Amino acid sequence: MLDYDMGARGELSRYEYLYRCVRDDIVSGEIPADQRLPSKRALARSLGVSVVTVESALAQLVAEGYVQARPRRGYYARRLPGPVAGTSPSAIRAARALTPAAPPGARPAPGRSGEGAGAPGADDAGLLADFTRASGPGVSPGARLWGRALRRTLAGEDEAELYAPAPARGALRLREAIARHLRASRGIVADPDRVVVGAGAQVLYGMVVQLLGPGLAYGVEDPGYPRLTGIYRAHGVSLRHVRLDGEGVDMDALRSSGAEVMHLMPSHQFPTGRVTSVARRYELLGWAASGERRYLVEDDYDCEFRLAGRPIPSLCGFDTEGRVIYVGTFSKGLGPALRMAYLVLPERLSRAFDERLGCYSSTVSTVDQVALARLLESGGYARPLSRYRASPRAGRDALLAALRARLGERLVVEEQDSGLHFVMGLRTCAGEREVASEALRRGVRVAPLSSFLSLSCDAPVPDGVARFVMQYEGCDRRSFPAVADALALACDGGAPGRA
Amino acid sequence: MLDYDMGARGELSRYEYLYRCVRDDIVSGEIPADQRLPSKRALARSLGVSVVTVESALAQLVAEGYVQARPRRGYYARRLPGPVAGTSPSAIRAARALTPAAPPGARPAPGRSGEGAGAPGADDAGLLADFTRASGPGVSPGARLWGRALRRTLAGEDEAELYAPAPARGALRLREAIARHLRASRGIVADPDRVVVGAGAQVLYGMVVQLLGPGLAYGVEDPGYPRLTGIYRAHGVSLRHVRLDGEGVDMDALRSSGAEVMHLMPSHQFPTGRVTSVARRYELLGWAASGERRYLVEDDYDCEFRLAGRPIPSLCGFDTEGRVIYVGTFSKGLGPALRMAYLVLPERLSRAFDERLGCYSSTVSTVDQVALARLLESGGYARPLSRYRASPRAGRDALLAALRARLGERLVVEEQDSGLHFVMGLRTCAGEREVASEALRRGVRVAPLSSFLSLSCDAPVPDGVARFVMQYEGCDRRSFPAVADALALACDGGAPGRA
Repeated sequence: MLDYDMGARGELSRYEYLYRCVRDDIVSGEIPADQRLPSKRALARSLGVSVVTVESALAQLVAEGYVQARPRRGYYARRLPGPVAGTSPSAIRAARALTPAAPPGARPAPGRSGEGAGAPGADDAGLLADFTRASGPGVSPGARLWGRALRRTLAGEDEAELYAPAPARGALRLREAIARHLRASRGIVADPDRVVVGAGAQVLYGMVVQLLGPGLAYGVEDPGYPRLTGIYRAHGVSLRHVRLDGEGVDMDALRSSGAEVMHLMPSHQFPTGRVTSVARRYELLGWAASGERRYLVEDDYDCEFRLAGRPIPSLCGFDTEGRVIYVGTFSKGLGPALRMAYLVLPERLSRAFDERLGCYSSTVSTVDQVALARLLESGGYARPLSRYRASPRAGRDALLAALRARLGERLVVEEQDSGLHFVMGLRTCAGEREVASEALRRGVRVAPLSSFLSLSCDAPVPDGVARFVMQYEGCDRRSFPAVADALALACDGGAPGRA
Repeated sequence: MLDYDMGARGELSRYEYLYRCVRDDIVSGEIPADQRLPSKRALARSLGVSVVTVESALAQLVAEGYVQARPRRGYYARRLPGPVAGTSPSAIRAARALTPAAPPGARPAPGRSGEGAGAPGADDAGLLADFTRASGPGVSPGARLWGRALRRTLAGEDEAELYAPAPARGALRLREAIARHLRASRGIVADPDRVVVGAGAQVLYGMVVQLLGPGLAYGVEDPGYPRLTGIYRAHGVSLRHVRLDGEGVDMDALRSSGAEVMHLMPSHQFPTGRVTSVARRYELLGWAASGERRYLVEDDYDCEFRLAGRPIPSLCGFDTEGRVIYVGTFSKGLGPALRMAYLVLPERLSRAFDERLGCYSSTVSTVDQVALARLLESGGYARPLSRYRASPRAGRDALLAALRARLGERLVVEEQDSGLHFVMGLRTCAGEREVASEALRRGVRVAPLSSFLSLSCDAPVPDGVARFVMQYEGCDRRSFPAVADALALACDGGAPGRA
């Protein structure tokens, strides 16, 4: 067991290869459930690789739910659910075979911006740092990349292509490029005919409602993304808030909610940052397959920007029953000013699209579609992501270092690897809103996790940890020591007046 | 009466000044209803202007419904309705004061493209001409203009502005430019805060439904625009088809339909090409003002492209009660590949927008918004329109000449001045579909007017005139004599086989 031939890894990195070997052995039962894995050092020694390589592979396995880390006891293989509809071992194997060949030399990069971003308000004067905004005032490298792509496209592409009206689903050239990109980066094998390009994820959420019908009950995660709730509400649908547990959407809550369509962010939930475990993914697919009108809307808004390890595999890549509607966006990689996202529809819904929504023109400028197709075709999109990742990672590290230095044991950080925000826990006997309001008086704006709940309250938190969603990308690192001071004082319920 | 001081016209053209004088005298009652106007020659002589000037002014007055042309009897002032809510004489005067100062040197230009356009199909081989498509395969001058605007913007504007996320309503700079454009070209005085920019008119129709609520009954014109019906239907609303008469939406039909929101194209109805008369506009505004939840959606999709005379004044410019939601688009002027349109909301709905739809991000790329703002600010959008008009006008003239030469008295042409299509009537005892299918066998694709009806039928037409909607912009003029031959044979029900 765990005696892998590292020489057989081909073009894969050591960590990637090791991750795949262990994952496959757990799925096949070769490594039984609850089996303890060898220690990191033992494994590194026996395979002839560095401890860092083993750590990276284990971190990925833990993030995806194949392996459980038990504090001070080690790593254990998790129990995966038995076959459910559409997830027989062969189906699992088939889905797994599609797991992305890691783009050569590339690893994932940076996160949540765009959808949630507003222009800085006038009331920001004197604010030390604002952790409630998705992006800062500067121009991101992704936006610059997009500007270059546009300029080159306008200079070099055929006018007749650039200025032709695009069909309802979007330009075929772009849909083909997206299909290839999805195969390489997300393990999703999609015919270009199942891809629908639209003017941002929000427009596409609306199209999903139009496609499935407004008469269904739509479930959203709780805590969740307030704008998403607003958009479903604006469409007049019946909305159900479904609570989360440590592995993702709580299945009992989902079943009792009456939701027929469940909108979720399995690779990186907003705001909790949680990754839905593999076991829960199978349960979700099984749930969807067991009802005629049930669908999962997989909102993969920032998967490519995971700060450590490989991107989390998509739920859509496991879906063999045609129950997952995948929503991806380029606003994260290329800046929030670009409004372009896409759906991957199951075959059956793709046919329904023609009947019900074929009356639409494409909602995205043809120039933008051609420019993005060109960028994807040239490899110019995937390659720079790894470079962009360096910047937010450094920001996160600086913030965490400042917080740890000042708060010590009072700091509890959750899920800091997955995307451009993390949940900061502070041990305190005050309520979350109380802490947030004290922090704001001291120049630091933070969003309480409870403000993302459908029924929010400000009772002192039961486990004595107040949690805040920290979007750090738009903040100046030099402010972080002062930020840590302000938060420490806010936790104490501090004296009135600025410290 | 009609003794105007042409020297007082200031910067207005003679025709524009004369049009305004007569219009104001009819509205004020100075020229009583049913009064016959002097003959064109007499008027030209007494005012010291050319007959062409008088003809132009009269044509505009007829198009807008102030004056009626009675064949072989002359021109008569029409009876305008008495004051209805929001349309008191002072309100009318106020609205009139806002009638566009004609953009210096500019007159309107060409029409329907984009929304309705699809890429040429594979089944077009051997087709002589296709009059069912909104645009041809070439690159329009408007699209080239847009490409230049984009290139200049990418080269010359501030990166921080180009790549910043835009707020829900769109970039302020663009909304300000649109407000100025609307004031100058359409007589609409709109605060930029009432303007909402979106990724094409279709996305904005959906936002209107989200704003007003899906529970209302929505009326659409019959015959009407099939894609529009499709979009309302996709939103799951209750849809009412309201028939037209010679002056616009039939008021009795509207009242009995139960519609609460009426979507109409008063300046150039598709497919009939009809212009809603002034009297009917007041009736419509009165209808809307008399119910709490009633609104008019004014779809002004190609107003700027009227081939003769000034653009028809907008309904929104007359609206003093806040009952008109105006929808305008730039896809006509700048090519169908650009997806950008805008709403002008009444004050009350503008506030509701924040509450209900403030959760949205803008649906249009910021780069596109800045580029369009720049183009509007520089005057680079309005100026070229007059030049672009030359091309479709020549196409229309060539087609009409060929049809008249071959069909003579059998040809009845309606509303050929208003936009990029007209309704061609052919005297025949065959049904419309029969003629269309015979024409197609001869290589000419035409759309029967009846195919735009909610309940279409192919009974022989009651007045012995079969009508077809002719979108001529995408057709090769050299084919027009052969087209006329094919249509003449199709009218005869011709012998089977190609002629």
